[in-house]
Amino acid sequence: MDWTPFIQRYEDELLKNVIPFWQEHCIDRECGGFFSCLDRDGSVYDPNKYMWMQWRIVYMFATLYSSEYGKGREDWLQIARDGYDFLVAHGRLDDGSYCFQLNRKGEPAMGPFSIFSDCFAAMGAAALFRATGEEMYKHEAESAMTSYIRRIPNPKGKYEKSLPGKERYLSHGSYMILANLGCEMRDCLDTDRYDAECRQAINTVMDKFFHPGLRVIFENVRPDGSFDLDSSEGRFLNPGHGLESMWFVMRYGETHGDRKLIRRAADYTDAQFRFGSDPEFGGIFYFMDALGKPSPELQHDMKLWWPHNEATIAALYAYRLTGEPRFLDRFLEIDAYSFSHFRAPLYGEWFGYLNRRGEPTHLLKGGKWKTFFHLPRCLLISLRQMKLLASR
Amino acid sequence: MDWTPFIQRYEDELLKNVIPFWQEHCIDRECGGFFSCLDRDGSVYDPNKYMWMQWRIVYMFATLYSSEYGKGREDWLQIARDGYDFLVAHGRLDDGSYCFQLNRKGEPAMGPFSIFSDCFAAMGAAALFRATGEEMYKHEAESAMTSYIRRIPNPKGKYEKSLPGKERYLSHGSYMILANLGCEMRDCLDTDRYDAECRQAINTVMDKFFHPGLRVIFENVRPDGSFDLDSSEGRFLNPGHGLESMWFVMRYGETHGDRKLIRRAADYTDAQFRFGSDPEFGGIFYFMDALGKPSPELQHDMKLWWPHNEATIAALYAYRLTGEPRFLDRFLEIDAYSFSHFRAPLYGEWFGYLNRRGEPTHLLKGGKWKTFFHLPRCLLISLRQMKLLASR
Repeated sequence: MDWTPFIQRYEDELLKNVIPFWQEHCIDRECGGFFSCLDRDGSVYDPNKYMWMQWRIVYMFATLYSSEYGKGREDWLQIARDGYDFLVAHGRLDDGSYCFQLNRKGEPAMGPFSIFSDCFAAMGAAALFRATGEEMYKHEAESAMTSYIRRIPNPKGKYEKSLPGKERYLSHGSYMILANLGCEMRDCLDTDRYDAECRQAINTVMDKFFHPGLRVIFENVRPDGSFDLDSSEGRFLNPGHGLESMWFVMRYGETHGDRKLIRRAADYTDAQFRFGSDPEFGGIFYFMDALGKPSPELQHDMKLWWPHNEATIAALYAYRLTGEPRFLDRFLEIDAYSFSHFRAPLYGEWFGYLNRRGEPTHLLKGGKWKTFFHLPRCLLISLRQMKLLASR
Repeated sequence: MDWTPFIQRYEDELLKNVIPFWQEHCIDRECGGFFSCLDRDGSVYDPNKYMWMQWRIVYMFATLYSSEYGKGREDWLQIARDGYDFLVAHGRLDDGSYCFQLNRKGEPAMGPFSIFSDCFAAMGAAALFRATGEEMYKHEAESAMTSYIRRIPNPKGKYEKSLPGKERYLSHGSYMILANLGCEMRDCLDTDRYDAECRQAINTVMDKFFHPGLRVIFENVRPDGSFDLDSSEGRFLNPGHGLESMWFVMRYGETHGDRKLIRRAADYTDAQFRFGSDPEFGGIFYFMDALGKPSPELQHDMKLWWPHNEATIAALYAYRLTGEPRFLDRFLEIDAYSFSHFRAPLYGEWFGYLNRRGEPTHLLKGGKWKTFFHLPRCLLISLRQMKLLASR
């Protein structure tokens, strides 16, 4: 297998398409922070500042600066630093958590109802510490991480709408993100402080969320690990989320030399591809019902960019770590689908949203939920996998 | 124009298709209340009880009982009575508001974060009073109505996530629903107690939400009546909602002999059809952006059953009250689209969700947001319009 053309294409995509698009369009030079709601040509269609999107931009520019592509890119570092200053000054609450949304000027606009604001703050600050070695960033990373862990038992806080009659579930998202956060903190802060939480989260993901009979990762399971097959929420699947989760686990397994864990995660990766792929039109479904019953989500059969980014990474990780050709086939399939369907022919970046047939339903390049994150992370991590494969 | 075949078809649809489907499948004979999550064949795919859906079933069976089709249908009345008993016993909170969701057994599962739970409780109880004359129902209708009006300034209560930095908007939904509620209370309870609120709501809808330059009804406007064209929330449109709103206004105008109001609502109805129709694949878009910028909603270009139900009523109302042929054309177009695209070929009822091309993306007949309400209401009210037209 000659990886050279792939490496060339992914480097071009990252360095000549995706990074320049965001660097040119996302910075709010007047008020600080970033615009993430960017139309097809990069123009701003909504000026609000959504915390997940903001911190992900900080994380990504800081991570790119520390990467093999970041040498001398002080401009990337400065973007991350400026973003950090804006977000800590405007979005941080007294208890160390982050509100969900600021208005353009930086005034808090939506309360801290999402624990993932804290998660991405921790990742962004940690990446800045790795990039600079400056203690301030480490301190904030630990503060946000502490807030995230503290909030896991009641992530929505006072905004929680559930009453005692509601079936209780563990959420796959909380655990998979914690598994990844542990790895990020370890890499960026060079600490083993979160290793126990990280290992426990990985055990929870692997032991509780994969349904052995149906062979797919559930998003919600009962606290005792049993599956609720009677309700839509209990049967809810998000195939791209499961694939993302599995490369997090493989990454952890490689760091800790845990071959058994890698073997198991690769096995689940294969199962996830089988369950989540659309046999008719290609690509990976956004949401599914474990028993094929109706999805309560209107957009369930759409094809989104990010599950395909995560699938790309998962396939490459599994192929590199197991050598099994089935994962190479999955990579080639997803790569071909992604570049032919999501890549925008004009103005750069990728479309985010396709209908089941693979036609764009939106021409936006960024939004309330799409920012400078999944795509550049996919390109960067995929490049690392490919280079390792090529060097064998 | 010979209305006979239309009347025949709509009566068959209501009496031989839609009512029997729900009557057979929606009643939970074990725990009380209703199932609304019904798969294509009527089987239950989720047992949870969503308050909007529950009260709408009560409202619809009680309304049908009082209608020209309800003579001797004590079975319909009993369904509404039983539903009422279940919901008042289990879903009503001490302050007269209603929680959003019960579990199958009737235990409160999600708190009262939606004001529309109270709205549909008021409508259901009022319809039962009209059907029976029993004071208990009137009392509950007034209680729920009072709760609804009380909550309008802060509809989400303690679950409100907005902070001071958030742009404030008036919501079209709150006012249009109040306009309709006023008419329902007047019809059912024979009271003019809510006439002032109703008139004020109608004035707000007509004076503030219609953009005279773009000629379309906005969903969110600033409290001073100015339009926010800079944000997605400010530019958000829901064409079917606007059409529903306009037949509420025409209904009010007819009751009060206000020809000028009718004239204006018909004019807006025409504008709404022009703005919201899909010139390529037919039907009415679910969501739009007033300036054609990207919609933040993934499902924006889908075709949903209910906007087509509301469009049918709006077109017939406007045609009957103005006599203008353009509204007859609109009715014929929407009627043809609806019956050829939404009507399910097997097991009865209609599909709820089509992609932009008009292909079903879900085969469900009921769900968390689809119940025994928009379709039977559309058939019943359309039949009345057609019979009045036919009798000229």
